[in-house]
Amino acid sequence: MNTVDKLAALRQLMRANKLAAYIVPGNDPHASEYMASHWFEMQWISGFNGETGTVVVTLDRAFLWTDSRYYLQAGIELKDSTIELMRESDIDCPSVIEWLTANIQGTVGLNPEMFSVNSYADIQGQLSAVNCQLASIDLIAPLWTENRPAIPQDKLYPYSEDYAGESVESKLARIREQISKNISQATNNQWALLVSALDEIAWLLNIRGNDVEYNPVVISYVVLEAEKCTLFVDSSKLDSAAQNYLDFNNIDVLPYHAVFDYIRGLNATVFYDGAKVNEALFEAIPESCPKRPIQSPILVTKARKNAVELEGERIAMRQDAVALTRFFKWLEEEAFTQSPITEWDLMEKLHEFRAKGVNFVEESFGTIAGYKGNGAIVHYAATPEKCAEVHPEGMLLLDSGGQYLDGTTDITRTVWLGGDIPAQAKRDYTYVLKGHIALSNIRFPRGTRGNQLDALAKQFMWQAGITFGHGTGHGVGHFLGCHEGPQNVRTDNNPTPLEVGHIISDEPGIYRTGEWGIRTENLITVIPAETTAAATTDDQWYAFETLTLCFYDTTLIDRSLMTQEEINWLNAYHKRVYDETAQLLTPEEAAFLARKCQAI
Amino acid sequence: MNTVDKLAALRQLMRANKLAAYIVPGNDPHASEYMASHWFEMQWISGFNGETGTVVVTLDRAFLWTDSRYYLQAGIELKDSTIELMRESDIDCPSVIEWLTANIQGTVGLNPEMFSVNSYADIQGQLSAVNCQLASIDLIAPLWTENRPAIPQDKLYPYSEDYAGESVESKLARIREQISKNISQATNNQWALLVSALDEIAWLLNIRGNDVEYNPVVISYVVLEAEKCTLFVDSSKLDSAAQNYLDFNNIDVLPYHAVFDYIRGLNATVFYDGAKVNEALFEAIPESCPKRPIQSPILVTKARKNAVELEGERIAMRQDAVALTRFFKWLEEEAFTQSPITEWDLMEKLHEFRAKGVNFVEESFGTIAGYKGNGAIVHYAATPEKCAEVHPEGMLLLDSGGQYLDGTTDITRTVWLGGDIPAQAKRDYTYVLKGHIALSNIRFPRGTRGNQLDALAKQFMWQAGITFGHGTGHGVGHFLGCHEGPQNVRTDNNPTPLEVGHIISDEPGIYRTGEWGIRTENLITVIPAETTAAATTDDQWYAFETLTLCFYDTTLIDRSLMTQEEINWLNAYHKRVYDETAQLLTPEEAAFLARKCQAI
Repeated sequence: MNTVDKLAALRQLMRANKLAAYIVPGNDPHASEYMASHWFEMQWISGFNGETGTVVVTLDRAFLWTDSRYYLQAGIELKDSTIELMRESDIDCPSVIEWLTANIQGTVGLNPEMFSVNSYADIQGQLSAVNCQLASIDLIAPLWTENRPAIPQDKLYPYSEDYAGESVESKLARIREQISKNISQATNNQWALLVSALDEIAWLLNIRGNDVEYNPVVISYVVLEAEKCTLFVDSSKLDSAAQNYLDFNNIDVLPYHAVFDYIRGLNATVFYDGAKVNEALFEAIPESCPKRPIQSPILVTKARKNAVELEGERIAMRQDAVALTRFFKWLEEEAFTQSPITEWDLMEKLHEFRAKGVNFVEESFGTIAGYKGNGAIVHYAATPEKCAEVHPEGMLLLDSGGQYLDGTTDITRTVWLGGDIPAQAKRDYTYVLKGHIALSNIRFPRGTRGNQLDALAKQFMWQAGITFGHGTGHGVGHFLGCHEGPQNVRTDNNPTPLEVGHIISDEPGIYRTGEWGIRTENLITVIPAETTAAATTDDQWYAFETLTLCFYDTTLIDRSLMTQEEINWLNAYHKRVYDETAQLLTPEEAAFLARKCQAI
Repeated sequence: MNTVDKLAALRQLMRANKLAAYIVPGNDPHASEYMASHWFEMQWISGFNGETGTVVVTLDRAFLWTDSRYYLQAGIELKDSTIELMRESDIDCPSVIEWLTANIQGTVGLNPEMFSVNSYADIQGQLSAVNCQLASIDLIAPLWTENRPAIPQDKLYPYSEDYAGESVESKLARIREQISKNISQATNNQWALLVSALDEIAWLLNIRGNDVEYNPVVISYVVLEAEKCTLFVDSSKLDSAAQNYLDFNNIDVLPYHAVFDYIRGLNATVFYDGAKVNEALFEAIPESCPKRPIQSPILVTKARKNAVELEGERIAMRQDAVALTRFFKWLEEEAFTQSPITEWDLMEKLHEFRAKGVNFVEESFGTIAGYKGNGAIVHYAATPEKCAEVHPEGMLLLDSGGQYLDGTTDITRTVWLGGDIPAQAKRDYTYVLKGHIALSNIRFPRGTRGNQLDALAKQFMWQAGITFGHGTGHGVGHFLGCHEGPQNVRTDNNPTPLEVGHIISDEPGIYRTGEWGIRTENLITVIPAETTAAATTDDQWYAFETLTLCFYDTTLIDRSLMTQEEINWLNAYHKRVYDETAQLLTPEEAAFLARKCQAI
């Protein structure tokens, strides 16, 4: 079937079900950032292969919403599809829900597995305000019967407590204790917590898998109760070691899709995180069960890394540092001696170095190698077919990370490849670096939220009239998602205070369209700080420990813009980078590193 | 009647009405910060004369919640009252609602005029969660019949457009337009906006009064509709000029208490700000009227000062600067030559200088003169009976402000009166000053909220392990409340972005119990800033203009902690203070000012 045929078939089902419109979002049932191809329903119905998009089909028209990264690709791929492109980054483009409420009368259908409880309620509320209804119905499964990729059947494997630092028993007990606090004693033993976020399940049960690119997770659900814990996962994913591991930990196993029937059979107060749990799970809860929305206690607990996890992160960081040092040495000494190289070649080469690292599993996201103007495209992704040639001149932005059994890394360095450095490039690099240092270096009282610290990283570029649109810092998992919540450092209001053990990135940037992009990113973790002699209150104080170990390009620094404190910070950091990684390098590599880490 | 008799009489009414508890809060019906004594119900029932408190009476016990400022006073005044003190600043003290939900079964009564719609709903929700009810009933009015102060009957006066900068007609049209946007065309002419905040009414109708200390407002309500505007105010407050002014502006007048019957007669969609409008007004809305909570459009519009209001603020600031210069000259040259002086004497003397200012009306709040350790008590209020002697040594914190017809001022300066300055005092003063400058001096993109900027004012003291608990900046009215919303600079999440014309204070501080308090406060206003040549986006940029004009005590500065940019800012500010105010002073005063404004 081509897209036109698919749309015709879908409309036939829509008519049979009396639907005026049908939404096909680019989501999976687990609110995942990275998805298995089984759930590429948006791509299947539209023929558009970008990562982000939403399709809306009415009885006579069809639309794809996607952002400016994909305008060109969508324009090509939607040709002859009859699907109209909605350019959602444009200021005058209505959102999906704005368009629906303005243009649709009647009932809108969607597959409730693909929407969180909260987003479903939001759509439903806005539609009902204009007297439209929402219907939960999957119209893609009956149509997409040929060549649909199966749900991944890779093996689940136990994740050793040597890396996790806490037993499943202890984790289950801690989460159960938090739920108990939210429920009256009378019903204490009759509750269930629905868990559908794959990284929460992996953390809770100390399991990992290979089901999703860049994310070592297992496609599954969990229902946690006072007396038992049930993992919904297909048995084909369990070898005998995995089965023994789950048995040993008293984790019941049922098939993946059995979760719906299981929930239908509950007789308990049901807790769910409306931002994560999908609407189909919610709709399966019996009428008679009290429903209690809650911020996932697993999310909150997982975010505070224990001492073993943090030590693992430090080990992974040293492996990453070795790979990056070797890469930058190769880039400086060898890359341009042979045939022309491209951004894609750089990505492959960096992967090659990283893959040699102890306990390396995979990359933690697709490397961004942005040469010159491409560095200014924040979500730039070079492909073998479409990437720039790189020459020994100008700016290169390199954002990459690894999944190691010990932990997850994410680092951005921007380097100058050769030629005269424009004064503005140095100023931009230095404003970014000053902001990066100001955030890393701040002490703050317990209770402080990331959005309070965001401006510290921006203040210097703000004074020059420059800002950037992405977050300054995101949470990072431990051998799990490179992006995790609830903590972050962003402009947006976020009620979560930073807590000891949180890991966040520190990555301000400046982007000049067509010229260069500069971003400097380390991972940092919240640690307790001593009370000073000057303290006036008995507040608890926190600070950050920098985890990432890699030199900055000091040739890009405009020293006249730096304070002595900032220079001291930089020199101490460079000394630490050398001291902690040189012994893992050959003498030639160590000599290269020593040059890069020279005090300024 | 003494307190015991009053409680007995109240309990009799409670029994007759089947109430298990009755709440008497320290509020008025207008959600005012400063109240007319007519509404001192909490003080009347308890005998406690502090400004803040809540009384809860049960059938066999009674409690007063108040904060640590009043523990001593409450202890004395509650003696023999049978009322138990709840020390609400103590960490283990339950809040009023926590105490009620844990201890009460049955119905809790309160006067709905004294609670905002939002706080009433909050109490009701929490009580109903433990199967208790809330009853709206005024049991104080039937008891407090003797010696109750009347509602103030001072005259209302028109506030000239020469000061206000905008006609009533224009203001009414702008507010009506904002309401129209929130309502469908079909019902466009059938809406009503309830207005009960006194500063909103004063702003909307360009009227002022003398009903409340420090706040030139008129006790009244307004109901604004598409075709008419009704002011509910007692006719005794209207002389013929006021009546003519209201007639001329087509403002209908009805008696103050007629607002309830008027609302009962509405047939319209009723808009109300649940944070401001009291529950009694809300309960008067007929069942048949749709009720629409909304952030008051008057609050939001009033906060953005127009060019005439800002010019008035600048005029008022020069008058304030003259008063402060004269005060500090007197303090340095004359205060200690005669008999011993007290904090109270300083407050009176400062008032004396300020009262000579052109267009001065009254103070904008009670002056805080905190000598040595008293400066560390954030809400310290000296009285003639209880105030410290001041000597020519040590630290003095002085926080004061004036209401001028041109505008409202609020300034804090901390000065050293003599003797050797401890190094820590200089460091504290300099951290505060650096934070104060960092906030004043920041450029930021449109859309930035105050809570994003809060840490800029704290970053230097944070690095030294010091912080403070009060807000960094509050909104300020124009010849209205010294505190107004919705904008502020605080730790708390506040969704309001800073907008051109907002006035906020910039007042970081450091407080050492028993030693000194240091606070430095200017008023600053948001202005548009030019886009720089280095800009990378087409964001709109904002900056602050400093309105306050008064020197800092440079003897308290530890110059080694200051950057050259900060020193440049300070010297430029001092030059501006001198240039803009010297011509209003005598030659001797100008010479004193010149010394104080010398570049460092």
